[in-house]
Amino acid sequence: MLNPKFSKESWNPKRKDMDVDQLASSILKGDIVALSRGITLIESKRIADSEKKNELLSILFPHTGQSYRIGITGVPGVGKSTFIEQFGLAAIEKNHKVAVLSIDPSSAKSGGSILGDKTRMNELSKHPMAYVRPTASGQHLGGVAQRTRESMLLCEAAGFDFVIIETVGVGQSEIEAMQLTDFFLLLMLAGAGDELQGIKRGIMETADAIAITKADGNNVQNAKNAAQEYRRALHLMPPHEGEWIPKVGTTSSLEKKGMNDVLKWLYLYKEHCQNNGYWTKKRVDQAHYWFNKHLQEQMLYKLQHHPELQKQLQNTKEEVSNLNLDPFRAAERLLGALRMDIY
Amino acid sequence: MLNPKFSKESWNPKRKDMDVDQLASSILKGDIVALSRGITLIESKRIADSEKKNELLSILFPHTGQSYRIGITGVPGVGKSTFIEQFGLAAIEKNHKVAVLSIDPSSAKSGGSILGDKTRMNELSKHPMAYVRPTASGQHLGGVAQRTRESMLLCEAAGFDFVIIETVGVGQSEIEAMQLTDFFLLLMLAGAGDELQGIKRGIMETADAIAITKADGNNVQNAKNAAQEYRRALHLMPPHEGEWIPKVGTTSSLEKKGMNDVLKWLYLYKEHCQNNGYWTKKRVDQAHYWFNKHLQEQMLYKLQHHPELQKQLQNTKEEVSNLNLDPFRAAERLLGALRMDIY
Repeated sequence: MLNPKFSKESWNPKRKDMDVDQLASSILKGDIVALSRGITLIESKRIADSEKKNELLSILFPHTGQSYRIGITGVPGVGKSTFIEQFGLAAIEKNHKVAVLSIDPSSAKSGGSILGDKTRMNELSKHPMAYVRPTASGQHLGGVAQRTRESMLLCEAAGFDFVIIETVGVGQSEIEAMQLTDFFLLLMLAGAGDELQGIKRGIMETADAIAITKADGNNVQNAKNAAQEYRRALHLMPPHEGEWIPKVGTTSSLEKKGMNDVLKWLYLYKEHCQNNGYWTKKRVDQAHYWFNKHLQEQMLYKLQHHPELQKQLQNTKEEVSNLNLDPFRAAERLLGALRMDIY
Repeated sequence: MLNPKFSKESWNPKRKDMDVDQLASSILKGDIVALSRGITLIESKRIADSEKKNELLSILFPHTGQSYRIGITGVPGVGKSTFIEQFGLAAIEKNHKVAVLSIDPSSAKSGGSILGDKTRMNELSKHPMAYVRPTASGQHLGGVAQRTRESMLLCEAAGFDFVIIETVGVGQSEIEAMQLTDFFLLLMLAGAGDELQGIKRGIMETADAIAITKADGNNVQNAKNAAQEYRRALHLMPPHEGEWIPKVGTTSSLEKKGMNDVLKWLYLYKEHCQNNGYWTKKRVDQAHYWFNKHLQEQMLYKLQHHPELQKQLQNTKEEVSNLNLDPFRAAERLLGALRMDIY
């Protein structure tokens, strides 16, 4: 199955003659090595690669959209990796191919990863029906989202039934992840205290289901109580746009419990939302979200690299630098003079 | 001192004849009622008001920049309001005029406020040398930042020495707040657990000081231990860009303890950063940040409302809606055809 053309030795992104068609067809055959290399190409920042990247994506795009896109989040300490490993293995038992893309947010300043490099999901990542790939987010959340979405499309083209996007519960990245996925699962700890719930409130509202983790040993009752609390809490929240009542339950990665419940939720949700049309509506809304976001980012880039506008931009920036012009006014003044049209 | 022209009865934003010069000069005199009305004008979404808004800001801008811009954050439950009240009163005792602008993030879906409407900072808000104003963030963080910055400028023009921006520790809004302020104070609870610290890691790195709250009763020792932990933790973090060693200490709003230490930190920090030039560098960097961010947001708006581009945009959006064109490619295709120049 593994195409010799893509043995590690031969791979070199600088190679002009890299055969994108060949790479694409190997990905479509479910070749994991080719998939990894495709994602490496996606993540490459080299301008030289961007053409190949677009070529690869346009070949594969028609073969995407069939997977179940699942977002899973929770604060550090909630046990995401162990949960995803056990859940993934449970899904594989039901004969689903499972891909996991972890968004590992670097800290704002150091750029250091939060999840850390410690090996994670050992058993799952070794499984022939699974694919696990971490992505460091760096500063640029928009950038991650694009790379993650494109990696997701590659996984779909490679025939994975479930594509799981894992994020750390640090706020913004959840919002982004939700805009990439069909189903959003929030992992919570029993008795983690009000502060935590305060932080998570905005995110709780957006969860399609909540799983209380670590419901094992003498923590089972706490977990059940927490689940009950969250059920009540969810009742107070605005109704789900898909007219779906979010599920809440307890799980144990240690004792491999509750994973099949989560699977059942996924089946129910998909059936429910495909019947009432929300499934498609959501994917369309997401497409519009990314369309606008990317337009926004790229227009600024285009303006900043516009040869004739350099002087104007420079002058305005200097005034801003001298702090004798408010940045918001400055931007509006420049935009006042900006004309746009289509070639 | 209060100008009769601005008695509640007379105020009506719809009035064509609202005298902005009069409003501006009252604000410059430190007239609190005028300040409130100026901020209401800033927050108004009515197109009719935007001209008045710009006029007001350009009159006042030359009179801004002198205040100490202080960001204070912490998770719900840390005791932000009570801390800010006691800190504000301590600052007033040192003869500083104190303004507090609270960014109260609405939850993503419901739009409901997180801080809640319960009256806060009773004593401080009634004090003649203080001004307390909450702002609901709504969905649009960029928007909050602009309104908050502009409200901040008005407070500066009104002669407030300290302008405090209060945010709830929900992630993104901290990053924005940091881009508005000179000094960033993080409030932490003793023994709030790893999850919480995990979430706060990225934010901790950016703190110029950490105050452990609720160091009273039998919690004093816990607080001291926590302070010691954070001092150690901060040593492991990347060095402060301003070559400043972040301060860590304990405070009690209940027993009014530690507030003067925080004041001392502020004096030391300002002196340190003005001497090594970081103070100005930071303000310039912030101005550039907001310049770019606003450009980005407004360019999209301009494109979306561009008469000749409507058809193009519509066609592309339809392809995106039919899910037969990836949103990122779609945006790039449209941008490929977009020409920009200056009138």
